[in-house]
Amino acid sequence: MHVVGKALPRVDIRGKVTGEAKYTADLEPAGILHGKVVHSTIANGVVTGFDLEKALAVPGVVKIVTCFDVPDHPFPTAGHPWSVETRHQDIRDRKLLNQRVRYYGDDIAAVVAETELAAEKAARLVKVQYEEYQPIVTTEAAMREGATPLHPELRKDNVIVHSHMTMGPSDFTFEEGRKQAEEQYGADNIAVVDRVYHTPRVSHCHLELPTSWAYVETNGKITVVTSTQIPHIVRRCTAQALGVPVGQVRIIKPYIGGGFGNKQDTLYEPLNAYLSLSVGGRAVRLEISREETIVSTRTRHAIDGHCRGIVTRDGRILARQLEAYANNGAYASHGHAICANCGNVFKDLYRDEMGAEIDCWTVYTSSPTAGAMRGYGIPQSIWMAECLTDDLAYAIGADPCQFRLDNCMQAGFVDPANGITFHSYGLKKCIEAGRKHIGWDEKWENYRHQTGSVRRGVGMAIFCYKTGVHPISLETASVRMVLNQDGSIQLCMGATEIGQGADTVFTQMAAETTGITPDRIYAVSTQDTDITPFDTGAYASRQTYVSGMACKKCAEELRAKILAYAVRMLNQDGIQMEQTIYAGQVKQAVQKLQQSIGLRDGEPVSADMLDIVDNKIVVSGGEPVLFDVAEVATTAFYSLDDSRHLTAEVTNQCKDNSFASGCCFVEIEIDLPLGLVTVKDIINVHDSGTIINPQTARGQVQGGMSMGLGYGLSEELLIDEKTGRVRNDNLLDYKIPTAMDTPDLHVEFIELDDPTGPYGNKSLGEPPAIPVAPAIRNAILNATGVAMDTAPMTAQRLIAAFRQHGLI
Amino acid sequence: MHVVGKALPRVDIRGKVTGEAKYTADLEPAGILHGKVVHSTIANGVVTGFDLEKALAVPGVVKIVTCFDVPDHPFPTAGHPWSVETRHQDIRDRKLLNQRVRYYGDDIAAVVAETELAAEKAARLVKVQYEEYQPIVTTEAAMREGATPLHPELRKDNVIVHSHMTMGPSDFTFEEGRKQAEEQYGADNIAVVDRVYHTPRVSHCHLELPTSWAYVETNGKITVVTSTQIPHIVRRCTAQALGVPVGQVRIIKPYIGGGFGNKQDTLYEPLNAYLSLSVGGRAVRLEISREETIVSTRTRHAIDGHCRGIVTRDGRILARQLEAYANNGAYASHGHAICANCGNVFKDLYRDEMGAEIDCWTVYTSSPTAGAMRGYGIPQSIWMAECLTDDLAYAIGADPCQFRLDNCMQAGFVDPANGITFHSYGLKKCIEAGRKHIGWDEKWENYRHQTGSVRRGVGMAIFCYKTGVHPISLETASVRMVLNQDGSIQLCMGATEIGQGADTVFTQMAAETTGITPDRIYAVSTQDTDITPFDTGAYASRQTYVSGMACKKCAEELRAKILAYAVRMLNQDGIQMEQTIYAGQVKQAVQKLQQSIGLRDGEPVSADMLDIVDNKIVVSGGEPVLFDVAEVATTAFYSLDDSRHLTAEVTNQCKDNSFASGCCFVEIEIDLPLGLVTVKDIINVHDSGTIINPQTARGQVQGGMSMGLGYGLSEELLIDEKTGRVRNDNLLDYKIPTAMDTPDLHVEFIELDDPTGPYGNKSLGEPPAIPVAPAIRNAILNATGVAMDTAPMTAQRLIAAFRQHGLI
Repeated sequence: MHVVGKALPRVDIRGKVTGEAKYTADLEPAGILHGKVVHSTIANGVVTGFDLEKALAVPGVVKIVTCFDVPDHPFPTAGHPWSVETRHQDIRDRKLLNQRVRYYGDDIAAVVAETELAAEKAARLVKVQYEEYQPIVTTEAAMREGATPLHPELRKDNVIVHSHMTMGPSDFTFEEGRKQAEEQYGADNIAVVDRVYHTPRVSHCHLELPTSWAYVETNGKITVVTSTQIPHIVRRCTAQALGVPVGQVRIIKPYIGGGFGNKQDTLYEPLNAYLSLSVGGRAVRLEISREETIVSTRTRHAIDGHCRGIVTRDGRILARQLEAYANNGAYASHGHAICANCGNVFKDLYRDEMGAEIDCWTVYTSSPTAGAMRGYGIPQSIWMAECLTDDLAYAIGADPCQFRLDNCMQAGFVDPANGITFHSYGLKKCIEAGRKHIGWDEKWENYRHQTGSVRRGVGMAIFCYKTGVHPISLETASVRMVLNQDGSIQLCMGATEIGQGADTVFTQMAAETTGITPDRIYAVSTQDTDITPFDTGAYASRQTYVSGMACKKCAEELRAKILAYAVRMLNQDGIQMEQTIYAGQVKQAVQKLQQSIGLRDGEPVSADMLDIVDNKIVVSGGEPVLFDVAEVATTAFYSLDDSRHLTAEVTNQCKDNSFASGCCFVEIEIDLPLGLVTVKDIINVHDSGTIINPQTARGQVQGGMSMGLGYGLSEELLIDEKTGRVRNDNLLDYKIPTAMDTPDLHVEFIELDDPTGPYGNKSLGEPPAIPVAPAIRNAILNATGVAMDTAPMTAQRLIAAFRQHGLI
Repeated sequence: MHVVGKALPRVDIRGKVTGEAKYTADLEPAGILHGKVVHSTIANGVVTGFDLEKALAVPGVVKIVTCFDVPDHPFPTAGHPWSVETRHQDIRDRKLLNQRVRYYGDDIAAVVAETELAAEKAARLVKVQYEEYQPIVTTEAAMREGATPLHPELRKDNVIVHSHMTMGPSDFTFEEGRKQAEEQYGADNIAVVDRVYHTPRVSHCHLELPTSWAYVETNGKITVVTSTQIPHIVRRCTAQALGVPVGQVRIIKPYIGGGFGNKQDTLYEPLNAYLSLSVGGRAVRLEISREETIVSTRTRHAIDGHCRGIVTRDGRILARQLEAYANNGAYASHGHAICANCGNVFKDLYRDEMGAEIDCWTVYTSSPTAGAMRGYGIPQSIWMAECLTDDLAYAIGADPCQFRLDNCMQAGFVDPANGITFHSYGLKKCIEAGRKHIGWDEKWENYRHQTGSVRRGVGMAIFCYKTGVHPISLETASVRMVLNQDGSIQLCMGATEIGQGADTVFTQMAAETTGITPDRIYAVSTQDTDITPFDTGAYASRQTYVSGMACKKCAEELRAKILAYAVRMLNQDGIQMEQTIYAGQVKQAVQKLQQSIGLRDGEPVSADMLDIVDNKIVVSGGEPVLFDVAEVATTAFYSLDDSRHLTAEVTNQCKDNSFASGCCFVEIEIDLPLGLVTVKDIINVHDSGTIINPQTARGQVQGGMSMGLGYGLSEELLIDEKTGRVRNDNLLDYKIPTAMDTPDLHVEFIELDDPTGPYGNKSLGEPPAIPVAPAIRNAILNATGVAMDTAPMTAQRLIAAFRQHGLI
């Protein structure tokens, strides 16, 4: 491959560095109105009335709408494709503004004003009367017998879905497995671990807040310009919320400053559209602050996992069990999909000789809504699985690294539940590379025997990740390419650039397949649902795999059209060239064909004799060069005999999937009395098939590792159980790692050509964030012998644990 | 036809009435810089230097560029398609800023400043040193032996092109014809008229000034948002001016407030792009005032025509001659095309039994540049032809109406020079309708014999107009349609809405052919050369004919794709419907097919059994209704078996052409001592094939008639012959008709189905402006016996003529 695999600089680098790149707020028209949401100050209850007098008296206030005004159209928000099968449709459980308040921060009214200040002032002056109920913040409370159902219109209890799955026999139970194991091996020859592992509720912390602006277009379209990962899905959900046909809504996505899954959800776009409609279609900006983003958009699910495992003393995992409880908060958003994904990956990661038993519960609580976040249930799954794996290894005194190599999922693995296949298998090579980098064999053994208050430890974790969502859901992606007169191309992807470098890798793919060099390929970065081909968007690490294949197919089609036109020029088949400025080139080209491949006089040129290399039409094989693609393009535009605009448009429905995998190895230093963990060395090794761009891939991995560090060590949204209020709704109190907290982040790739990927590639977007936290946890275990069960492993938690174990 | 032919309200009516519609200036980003052009204050000479000190000292000035800074890339500006044949390419005779000054108002420098005021102030403070030559304002002066050539780099004299054409024998000359006629008929049996007719230089007077703004996009594209009729052509010309590949330039056309041909030229877009580049890609607005628009954009050519004609006493035109001299001003712009068009139509309009001889000269002068304006040489041509026709009729005492019916171009006429054919012929029916409306037969005879100072007169003029530019130039148009989930469509035309109602008629065409109702068709009005299919733009009254055919073909393709998908749903051919929400409909539909057309059990449905009517898939013939197109669209988007984004994209290269024709009949009252003409009754009757929308067509005709009134009676740019300066560069001194000056404008259409038009339609955009002025002139002749030779027929000119004839 010529372009795929090269470290092409990001195509948007100039605009992003200079500040030229236009984000949503940069595009606002003059004279825009400002919207502000009024949020509930109770976590559970009903709004019984408003006193708007003081708010309406604020100069500049144009309109106040409340939960009593909005249409009665419950709508879903999840960034899933819609489905023509009812059972695949998402849960419709919220309105534009909600009278039934379900968390502290629920949307109950909104102000539109001439200025941002007036909107904020008025929003603060809105007085609300409530009927208040007891907040139900935890899954335990929500699942308790007799707990008030938060969505009685949908279900009698608070469990959104409970699902049960097994590996091995379909009626496999862990308890039966244990009995059988005891019988077969004898109780002394097996070890059983039974623990509960906890993951925190965390915030995405994307730089750009999810502000949007909406207006009604001249043609009647309700248009929302918004920072989203999923413009086509937001279009459909907004239409559902407003009760209008999808075609009446238009969503425009400019450059965006990060999403990490929070923007894989329909956030305030429907309300913004409604606010514009409520003021006659004028442009209204809906400002969402950081505090609102943390509380009132989405979070990553806190999932608690009751895990059990049985292992033989000689190191074979016999059975595992997971009971996962996901705190989904007030609204369903992505529903059960995330917790189900957590369970699925837990069961896939290891061979359980006897079987695995999984139960997943997703539970409404009166707390902020959980939705998609980088990893989609798998950071939680891997926290549980990889805590358990080390605990199992420690229970039998095994080297956790070797233990994993012996028990992990093997080459050719096929998930029997859904047929997802490990088409290219690099997991063990990843483990070997990480083991070598960190110096595992020597260090792990040495570090186990330390004493003293400052110690070292090495730890590791492995993971697997499904590429895209087939066959669980629809995978479809469309692409259009437009040839310009100069032989350059506009590449219009339905897939979205969200900071991850999508425009760059698609440019490389288009270049690879068309033969046009990347500097002549212009990625149209703005998605506009009125004109951009359909694609469900940036999530599930699907774009290079699913949309990439659409890009490849579209490039093949455009290339074929260019060559077909070139052939007709050479054969003068309906296109007379004599009078044109290219007459000489065409004549010479035919002579070159005669000399190079022995084309006979009068024999027609055919497309298989030609190729496109570096913007040139060449004889197949690369030489000699005939003429520039620009000459074909220009002729196609302007020929008096046959003028045609060469474009190509393709949909790729993806009906395959391949596991990506990888691992993290980490070495830490831990100061026991301070509870301070310092990461001394860390490496992620990824099996993601062919790497399209090693430079941007490395950046992607490093970003994920940084998120993993925060997940393991510092990040957690704290909720007051009494009031349901988020205690740390800002970036001073909510701690993400800074550059100062971050060591050198090492990255390696095991590049195996995946036969199902368009260019041999598999997922890479989300995986890097997955294995870091449990690797650190396991390094602490190596250093101290203390097995933590709760992330993040803050100083408070560590000190408490060390005290409990008598280490300090 | 269901939708074509109906008076659908304009699709953009709401936005245009409420002010919601976004024009170029409405879209400017905050913090934009302001550009201002410095114009020469001499008409002919060379800039030898600048003193910028004071200008640069104005606070807020960011940059001043001069003619010494710009790249040496002479570029063309004409709104013609480019050509791969050198002889068809336009003349490259101007730079972004010109050191060699060729008219009073030439662009010699430009200022960029933080505010508009600073830019204007600094522009006024730029001091210029010139080497000054004598202005050459008239064609006579420019063609005089030894006249200084204005473009010595291109040609030794000032004649851009002289072309000679004949009708009849290719060596036909009028002089030979006259001799032969005298011999054949005897000098007493023929009459010869020999006169010179003059047309004025006029201004387009579109409401929206040609302001634009430019910036460099994140992907490096030089982007200009501009009010243009021809975005794709402006893209190419801007690239030529900057010396960059076409693909690096992007042009965006929002709604525009009129163009009338002035915006069928590349105006200040290249300079605007250059100004942005000169400040590092920041957004720069280039403000063009009304005064600048009048002087420094384009005008309609003043063409003087020396005309001669021979007619037999019994009313047969034997021969005519035209020597046309077009004052092209300083730069070639549309070059010779306009004067050649003038000559072409002159020769086509009547049968000259012996032949016609035409010579056209297009001449550089040191005056404002003439370019395209509604009619493209034909208002001048028809002024000359129809003055001459009345003068010939009067010379033999014939009724001018009957004289025209006897001599005008006949059904089936084919122009032997280019093969353009009168495929549908309505000219004589138009004349009969106008004759009847105005009461010609009675009035013309009565009015000839009036005396007194206030008199009445009736006059008429006929015209023909070629539809589009084939085969003189390329005719190509592309269209893309996008199906939404709800069965609605985005219609993306490369053709441009410029106020003429294009979006509305294309919506009707798309509705007619797809079966989707117009309320579900969204015309994407903004053309963006990066994504909008290629089309050369709005000119030559080509769009309904050329782009309309592309729209029809694209609609046929989309309709076929929808039906093909519906067939597969019905046959469950690779698309399983049982699990879907449409399972019931599909089952019922098959039953309906069995009942209505006797589909046998197991027999597959085929596309020809189905049709689309009013958004429903129906059984061919219209009944019964099966299901909504929305259900097909939704399934196509979301089917787990076969998801595809149904879109269609088509290029139509048009290789046909058909004459449109028509006439104007007018009744005037003239006050001889005041020189005051009052139009009492006026009607235009048009043969434009099928009328797509009678409401918008009527508006189009009335607008044209209003322009014709100004052309005949009041509009003329006056140029000081000494200095070359335009004397009336503003709308106080340059007189266009107001509502107060305008009588009821009657409109009739002779609707004949043209076999070559997509829906039987032919040109209507420009024709209405053509025949009005000579009809008024001929009415004055009827009233007074005075044959005017110069338009506009102002009070001064009329009084002078009446004095000369002893009437006052």
